[in-house]
Amino acid sequence: MEKVKGYIEANRERFINELFELLRIPSVSAKDENKGDMVRCAEHLKGVLLEAGADRAEVFATKGHPVLFAEKIVDESLPTVLVYGHYDVQPAEPLELWKSPPFEPEIRDGKIYARGADDDKGQFFMHVKAFELMVKEGILPCNIKFMIEGEEEIGSPNLESFCLENRDMIAADVILISDTPMIALETPTVTTGLRGMAYMEVELTGPNRDLHSGLYGGAVINPCNVLCDMISKLTDEDNRITIPGFYDDVIEVDSDERREMAKRPHDDNEYSSEIGVDYLGGEKGYSTIERLGIRPSLDVNGIWGGYTGEGAKTILPSKAFAKISMRLVPDQDFRKVEKQFDQYFRSLAPEGITVKTRVLHGGQAYVSPLDSPEYEAAAMALEETFGMKPIPVRSGGSIPIVSVFEKALDTKSILIGFGLDSNAIHSPNEHFPLFSLFKGIETIPLYFKYYSQLKGGQE
Amino acid sequence: MEKVKGYIEANRERFINELFELLRIPSVSAKDENKGDMVRCAEHLKGVLLEAGADRAEVFATKGHPVLFAEKIVDESLPTVLVYGHYDVQPAEPLELWKSPPFEPEIRDGKIYARGADDDKGQFFMHVKAFELMVKEGILPCNIKFMIEGEEEIGSPNLESFCLENRDMIAADVILISDTPMIALETPTVTTGLRGMAYMEVELTGPNRDLHSGLYGGAVINPCNVLCDMISKLTDEDNRITIPGFYDDVIEVDSDERREMAKRPHDDNEYSSEIGVDYLGGEKGYSTIERLGIRPSLDVNGIWGGYTGEGAKTILPSKAFAKISMRLVPDQDFRKVEKQFDQYFRSLAPEGITVKTRVLHGGQAYVSPLDSPEYEAAAMALEETFGMKPIPVRSGGSIPIVSVFEKALDTKSILIGFGLDSNAIHSPNEHFPLFSLFKGIETIPLYFKYYSQLKGGQE
Repeated sequence: MEKVKGYIEANRERFINELFELLRIPSVSAKDENKGDMVRCAEHLKGVLLEAGADRAEVFATKGHPVLFAEKIVDESLPTVLVYGHYDVQPAEPLELWKSPPFEPEIRDGKIYARGADDDKGQFFMHVKAFELMVKEGILPCNIKFMIEGEEEIGSPNLESFCLENRDMIAADVILISDTPMIALETPTVTTGLRGMAYMEVELTGPNRDLHSGLYGGAVINPCNVLCDMISKLTDEDNRITIPGFYDDVIEVDSDERREMAKRPHDDNEYSSEIGVDYLGGEKGYSTIERLGIRPSLDVNGIWGGYTGEGAKTILPSKAFAKISMRLVPDQDFRKVEKQFDQYFRSLAPEGITVKTRVLHGGQAYVSPLDSPEYEAAAMALEETFGMKPIPVRSGGSIPIVSVFEKALDTKSILIGFGLDSNAIHSPNEHFPLFSLFKGIETIPLYFKYYSQLKGGQE
Repeated sequence: MEKVKGYIEANRERFINELFELLRIPSVSAKDENKGDMVRCAEHLKGVLLEAGADRAEVFATKGHPVLFAEKIVDESLPTVLVYGHYDVQPAEPLELWKSPPFEPEIRDGKIYARGADDDKGQFFMHVKAFELMVKEGILPCNIKFMIEGEEEIGSPNLESFCLENRDMIAADVILISDTPMIALETPTVTTGLRGMAYMEVELTGPNRDLHSGLYGGAVINPCNVLCDMISKLTDEDNRITIPGFYDDVIEVDSDERREMAKRPHDDNEYSSEIGVDYLGGEKGYSTIERLGIRPSLDVNGIWGGYTGEGAKTILPSKAFAKISMRLVPDQDFRKVEKQFDQYFRSLAPEGITVKTRVLHGGQAYVSPLDSPEYEAAAMALEETFGMKPIPVRSGGSIPIVSVFEKALDTKSILIGFGLDSNAIHSPNEHFPLFSLFKGIETIPLYFKYYSQLKGGQE
């Protein structure tokens, strides 16, 4: 521990400067104009990884933006940790809301302000520097690989095939990811669950054209009214989803884990007031944390039909549309849910209305057990640096790539994030506290230490 | 009758040429670029009316487009008929769908093709020529006035105040209007009812911004889902409107009039197949004709909220909107219905959702009795020229100006239209059959004759 702290102290300024260099590259994956910056960023990382102590570092072209792979194999017989991260960032717009330019990093109040400062350059950079530290101080206890992609913010369209094509190269015992938030700055957090998703679009057609609502209204079925009826029937008064079979595969979380979850600091009043509502809603019989973490949900993400301009146009619309997504929990299968939704939704349509449904996006839920060496190692490392046991959090969100890793590589991921919900990722003035940066660099070597011990002892 | 037929025969070509002249003026009230054409059209009509035999014809400026007023007072002690019409037309777009240019009238297959050929230049022109005929042949039996406005297609924003300011000038015993369709080319029709309207816009707000549907979905109330629930509750499974008190003032039409209505030729299968639905829907216990004519309706004219672009954006929207209009029947008062809607709709909102409602447009329903001299005269005239009694039709649409006439002038209107639903008014290739044009010119003098007789006898 002294070695770790001493190295960080001695190299503090350099670490910050190196992160700034990385943050200055506008690696916006969504924009064509930044294609060159993407390649430049991957090449830059190759140099950084080699300098940090990698035996091998290589930029792999994909159909989209390149993937950076690096590794240091200490001993084939030792466990291997694969660090996953992404060097691409969200677009910085609206630029006028930034206090300092998004690609000119700046420290204010102990926080680094820049696009990507947290998500995910700041977070994976901690792993790079922890790796350097372990190499230089001779305390790297196992093999390490890095896979840093450039398409996370656009849905990782090429990562699954990259993994499948390079299965041996990236083979590992665990995938370590820092791309999630902590509950609070000094509350260590492990994300142990992510929800899956089934995202559908529906289209209802009534008459073959928009009709005059005076000359036809009352005698002809209206697809906008019908869509409301149908969506209304997807949930009941307890806010449970009524799709037959929907809950069949939902794993009811046992009381032990629910008790653990309840320890997570959370205040419904604060939560409500932050989003400006005086009442939350949600499925009867569950807390907010549970509704987000262990229960599925159904939301209309968008709805449209008929005349939506200014004033009073008197039409009886021909069509009505909605985007409806369901967040799923283990062991729901998104493909099964898509079929259940499709079947039930169609069954709700009255005569006179034609229904089309379309799958827009899907992904499996993910959950990692609390009694695994991956989790235990994280718990031990975080307790040592933060002085308290981490809180396991089932996030309401989805990182589809995590279940891809599990499916394609048969490898569990461990999500130890050092971000914060308040770090404004995806928003103007994204930032990352220096506290988090150095706490991360300090914690990661301990994870490697305990994971190697536990894993070595286990095998 | 011989005089009438003879005059029409002798002047047939001239009548067509004069109507063509009128149709060539692009009097589109909605477009600024046609402002000059509007004035030109009103001035042109002034000349036409004077030539036809008016004692007085005058163009009145309004805040918008001018009103043409003309009259011939035969004898103060005789009844007075006011002919209402409008010289403005709908925009002609999309121009590429017209087979011949909209403002270059052309006869094909016995029909005049041009914007305004039916609505309403063709229809009020019949009255002008019938007037000329009665004057020239010395058979005008009563006083006649013309009020031809230029803002009907944009909602007649200045006509009510014009009527109120010129109450004495336009005073009449009956207002005669040809601006409605017949059931079929050879089926004479009198429109005896028009529905009123209460048109509302609603806005629901949940959270103070769009939220991430993964990080909040299931724990936070979604205004798009709620809007669907609320709209769904506005009608029941019999398609009756559930707003408390909504039906209180609805006049139940007696079985005699329902029997009369049932005589109207109508085929639900034809009607359905024309609009491309295999089932119609509508309030239980009523026929299609009744649902349109004597029953109120509630339609979502437009709905929108959340993400409506391409692909899958995972938001839990902050807001949801809808435009909802109700068609009303006698004796519903639109202002009362607006209040009832507002109160009930708000009562449906769950905690956590804020509701705003806004009145966009309103108008009273109108019904004219079948046992009045106005109606009897129309029935006698139409029977004589068509060989069958007219069918009284309660139209589902609204012509708010008719109830304004009733309210502001205390004068009943009689709606004898010679148009057809298939004449493509408001659409490309609007047309008006020559058959209708001359049948109208032939019928109108008979209306004047019988109305004067009945009215004279009555007083």
